[in-house]
Amino acid sequence: MSQERVDHLLTSHRHEMPGRLVELDVDECWELLRRTPVGRLAWNGAAGPTVVPVNYVATSDGIVVKTTAYSAAVRETDDSPITFQVDHIDPETRTGWSVLAHGRLDVDWSFGRVDAPEVDVWPAGPRPLRLQLEISTISGRRLTD
Amino acid sequence: MSQERVDHLLTSHRHEMPGRLVELDVDECWELLRRTPVGRLAWNGAAGPTVVPVNYVATSDGIVVKTTAYSAAVRETDDSPITFQVDHIDPETRTGWSVLAHGRLDVDWSFGRVDAPEVDVWPAGPRPLRLQLEISTISGRRLTD
Repeated sequence: MSQERVDHLLTSHRHEMPGRLVELDVDECWELLRRTPVGRLAWNGAAGPTVVPVNYVATSDGIVVKTTAYSAAVRETDDSPITFQVDHIDPETRTGWSVLAHGRLDVDWSFGRVDAPEVDVWPAGPRPLRLQLEISTISGRRLTD
Repeated sequence: MSQERVDHLLTSHRHEMPGRLVELDVDECWELLRRTPVGRLAWNGAAGPTVVPVNYVATSDGIVVKTTAYSAAVRETDDSPITFQVDHIDPETRTGWSVLAHGRLDVDWSFGRVDAPEVDVWPAGPRPLRLQLEISTISGRRLTD
């Protein structure tokens, strides 16, 4: 990643951060992405974005989720920009962090015949289709005490 | 709200819910929305949806957030569809719930001269601008043990 791109990631949301909201660097964003079990897949729909919690695993350049072949995520996201969001919020201390990643979603139509990391999916039922999100930009913020 | 509309809300995401994922009814969605301190405002951007955690208060027909006058939420959401999402996820029990609301965002340019519920904003710094989201549709799901 170019320094210019990193600089852009680090400053693009800075205007929204008065007080104790601080930017996370890209490495911190990836670290948080890697250790969180549930994130939110978001895509543009006619009524506005759809935001759906999903289990996932992080790869070297993105994330992998599993879904049903007839899910809205497959039907509505064909070749469209996708966002993946993770956060942790602690109402007791009023602290937290959030990470936002943009990229594109590829549907793996091989139905498991191609090697890929296994996703530990909490809801029951078959989810044969693997979606791979290659992340092009990632940024994050932390709200400190 | 018409029964037809309620029925639509209750069935629109049903195809995504194998196993222990169950639909929440509209009253349950509002109840969860009312008792959660932080939600996620999401709007369509060029790079995909932007999803940002915010403090809010629920009103009779929507939610109110406060922001800076120069925030991305104000600059990028003029008269465009908006999503508000809340969830709670428990990695220990692998359970949780999520609520998704769609509507339109109105910017209150009176800067506090119009009466409105106060929002308890965790980050420091002035947030003089009030955004009111009138919710047109709301739906939710619960992942049981």
